[in-house]
Amino acid sequence: MKSVQLYDTTLRDGTQGEGFQLSMLDKLRIAQRLDAFGVDYIEGGWPGSNPKDIEFFQEARKLDLKHAKLAAFGSTRRADVAVEEDPQVKLLLDAETPVVTIFGKSWDLHVIEVLRTTVEENQAMIRDTVRYLKANGREVVYDAEHFFDGYKASPQHALATLQAAAEGGADVLVLCDTNGGTLPSEVMVICKVVAEAIPGTPLGIHTHNDCELAVANAIAAVKAGGVQVQGTINGYGERTGNCNLTSVIPILQLKMGIPVVPDLEQLQQLSYFVDDVSNNPHFARAPFVGRTAFAHKGGMHVNAVQKLARSYEHIEPGAVGNSQQILVSELSGQSNILLKAEGLGVPLEKGSPEAKAVLTRVKDLEHDGYSFEAAGGSLELLIRKEVGEYEKPFELKEFHTSFRLYRDGHDPVCEATVKVHVGDEAEYTVAEGHGVVNALDKALRKALLPFYPEIGDVSLLDYKVRIIDGHDATAAKTRVLVVSGDGKSTWGTVGVSENIIEASWIAIVDAIDLFLQRRREATVGV
Amino acid sequence: MKSVQLYDTTLRDGTQGEGFQLSMLDKLRIAQRLDAFGVDYIEGGWPGSNPKDIEFFQEARKLDLKHAKLAAFGSTRRADVAVEEDPQVKLLLDAETPVVTIFGKSWDLHVIEVLRTTVEENQAMIRDTVRYLKANGREVVYDAEHFFDGYKASPQHALATLQAAAEGGADVLVLCDTNGGTLPSEVMVICKVVAEAIPGTPLGIHTHNDCELAVANAIAAVKAGGVQVQGTINGYGERTGNCNLTSVIPILQLKMGIPVVPDLEQLQQLSYFVDDVSNNPHFARAPFVGRTAFAHKGGMHVNAVQKLARSYEHIEPGAVGNSQQILVSELSGQSNILLKAEGLGVPLEKGSPEAKAVLTRVKDLEHDGYSFEAAGGSLELLIRKEVGEYEKPFELKEFHTSFRLYRDGHDPVCEATVKVHVGDEAEYTVAEGHGVVNALDKALRKALLPFYPEIGDVSLLDYKVRIIDGHDATAAKTRVLVVSGDGKSTWGTVGVSENIIEASWIAIVDAIDLFLQRRREATVGV
Repeated sequence: MKSVQLYDTTLRDGTQGEGFQLSMLDKLRIAQRLDAFGVDYIEGGWPGSNPKDIEFFQEARKLDLKHAKLAAFGSTRRADVAVEEDPQVKLLLDAETPVVTIFGKSWDLHVIEVLRTTVEENQAMIRDTVRYLKANGREVVYDAEHFFDGYKASPQHALATLQAAAEGGADVLVLCDTNGGTLPSEVMVICKVVAEAIPGTPLGIHTHNDCELAVANAIAAVKAGGVQVQGTINGYGERTGNCNLTSVIPILQLKMGIPVVPDLEQLQQLSYFVDDVSNNPHFARAPFVGRTAFAHKGGMHVNAVQKLARSYEHIEPGAVGNSQQILVSELSGQSNILLKAEGLGVPLEKGSPEAKAVLTRVKDLEHDGYSFEAAGGSLELLIRKEVGEYEKPFELKEFHTSFRLYRDGHDPVCEATVKVHVGDEAEYTVAEGHGVVNALDKALRKALLPFYPEIGDVSLLDYKVRIIDGHDATAAKTRVLVVSGDGKSTWGTVGVSENIIEASWIAIVDAIDLFLQRRREATVGV
Repeated sequence: MKSVQLYDTTLRDGTQGEGFQLSMLDKLRIAQRLDAFGVDYIEGGWPGSNPKDIEFFQEARKLDLKHAKLAAFGSTRRADVAVEEDPQVKLLLDAETPVVTIFGKSWDLHVIEVLRTTVEENQAMIRDTVRYLKANGREVVYDAEHFFDGYKASPQHALATLQAAAEGGADVLVLCDTNGGTLPSEVMVICKVVAEAIPGTPLGIHTHNDCELAVANAIAAVKAGGVQVQGTINGYGERTGNCNLTSVIPILQLKMGIPVVPDLEQLQQLSYFVDDVSNNPHFARAPFVGRTAFAHKGGMHVNAVQKLARSYEHIEPGAVGNSQQILVSELSGQSNILLKAEGLGVPLEKGSPEAKAVLTRVKDLEHDGYSFEAAGGSLELLIRKEVGEYEKPFELKEFHTSFRLYRDGHDPVCEATVKVHVGDEAEYTVAEGHGVVNALDKALRKALLPFYPEIGDVSLLDYKVRIIDGHDATAAKTRVLVVSGDGKSTWGTVGVSENIIEASWIAIVDAIDLFLQRRREATVGV
């Protein structure tokens, strides 16, 4: 077992952040990605707080996680209620996860003023709930909410709550700096005191960034013997955010010699993936993974960097999948694209004319506002076109959409027309839809179905829109990301244009085009 | 004298950051503001690096700084040149600042590979330059570049360079983590070693955020006895940025009991000021000063915050000029909305029929996919309608949009028509635009302008789109967020629909509707 375990709560505590909302499909996609990256625990949600999280756990059972254990999050039983009678605790078991994480109160102020119960009952609530979950076969993570504030207010009370969790059989006691107000020196001292007072149960750490110290506090706890670090990708979370795993992971692995993930080079892509799926802009100055994290501006620095890279770089940028930014484009270096091509089964040789052509095309498109981190389908299509593994299945001539809304109770009327050529035959179709994109999608399928009946297997699963700022005097652009599926696999495609309808059209056409390429190969046995 | 001095390098090291550029006027404005806030040293630039910095120091002499001392930044003399002959050193004196800060090499690797000289000559360069500047009456800050990396490579060499600066008469020795790769535990240990080895001269700290540890490292150095902290406002700077003074200052003052500025309540305004002057977006999650730094989302948290503010806030938000922000969102209870209404100047009494009606309406809309977190304008309109502070300015009858794209090189053709009634009069207008939303916005204004010429003041400033998952068999919905402004204030409005055109329409109509309500009140003096 690794000496430090990574516990990701992007799907739960991350979604407490403003502007960080995830659909169920988003959550499932991120969970799979976290698993592939080597995170040890994935906290999926709080089944007691909303129906979406209950549904998530139902769907998550079908995920084939290779490494990570899924955790359901919730609270201890309520005061003066038997644990087996508490409906919120029942929902935690109903989630059927191998791990259940519960939080309890460490601060006597909260016990008395917020819960309005006694410290003894609070301890019983913790002990009973942990014991009950253990009796039901769960691995139990105990989150000691407000632990550091609670400890500073009353060490005896705070330690007694941890003791109660340990007596209940908790597998790990996680000390939470819920308000983010604790300094690293305090974290270090208090973790050591706790480890001595409750020697039998390992400790974890959960920090928030209110003093810009969440990462430092997590590291301080590991230095003091902590074996589990909780946090979120890119530090998303309530207020100023949670501990940023995207920074903690490379610090543990590269600076402290504690191996935590098998392939750290995937870090930057994971960071962009979570940004793109949650539809958030990338933070350019982000440590390790930011676009400018290894950017050199001062002429003297650039010169020195070229003489001796490590003279101005604290790590080799490629170690986290990033790259020195002097010559290389906005987000992907050549090696990322080569890796991607290899993953797609279309290997490109570094430095070959095809690799250079692909790279140039990607850079041009990125400059126009494209992003391929969550649109592997469009990238695959681009690579196929550049290396000649592509046959054009149809030719687009024209499309039109119309939308009319009456205020007298009629439903809106929305239609699209599409004109395409397949070989020598022309098709001109019209369809109605819920919206213009839906109508366009239907009209396109209607035109192609007689030629390619397999298109009936494809459906549009997700559709995301981002406005990208214009530079200088150019107009803002719209980036549309579409996720499609055929029941066996899913793929993402992307379109960019000054107007949303054309951007959507590009992404939809790519989705169907790629599907037809893959099917053709499967049929002719390429 | 204060026990810790603040040394701001926003104007010099800050401008090494990508996207952080300042004109001379910007620099002068920021310098005055930093002085008023109580910063002790302001590093204005490097006169040897560009003519703009030379001009800045000429203009800066006219500034009437109340407290801060201006510093010119530069390097030691070159190798094998007499200090009084070195033109770069001469420019430092020509800047006529009370303080000169020079950096020298601490890392033997750099001395040999980058400077291509000997360690002995390097020490002489440091000693000579400090002594010469002191002889010319300057206070001298010595920045030991790459000190921590240099110390780890060769403690003897690194300490010898500091010794040389001390012998030259440096007023403070600033240990720089130039590459940002050092951990707080290392900073702490190395600072203590240096303080023992060179007891006569005080120490300072200059850190970078490459490991998300710049603030933690600065604090560690202060704990180890450091008396000067260098950094930038909002952490601007090369790569991932410099130590963020906007976080360090409240930590020193509020958490460590070290008074550093007279009026900490000005902190948030200073932060916004620097963002605005440099034309950078505000980082919402910024510790202490960010828009969401004291934002509470979960209903349970909000409830607890009202019971007992400090239960979920690590400091009183007003201490740094920030304020508690209650986000109206999915999990929100009644208390969120009442607080919001009060903030809008439309107080609602808890439990009143109006409050209940507003709450029901908000919950229904949220269930339909609305979100009012960033759409206070739509929430205000909703509250106005429920409490009867609303007069309908126009009635919508019908709208239509059309979009046609040809593949033969034509630009797409996009138009919209709008039919509205104002009182007894009907208007039916048509307009073209870059996209359907732009065309709709234009057609609507064209229809209303004859009745409400003040609409000419309103412009659409930002437009954001999100897709919200459908539950079960219902279609996914689109949420559009629009930010509008009239040159004096800005307001956000939101629209949700199964199709993006209608969602955009709702948000645009709300924006204009609210503007007309407010103008009507301003005119009739309500």
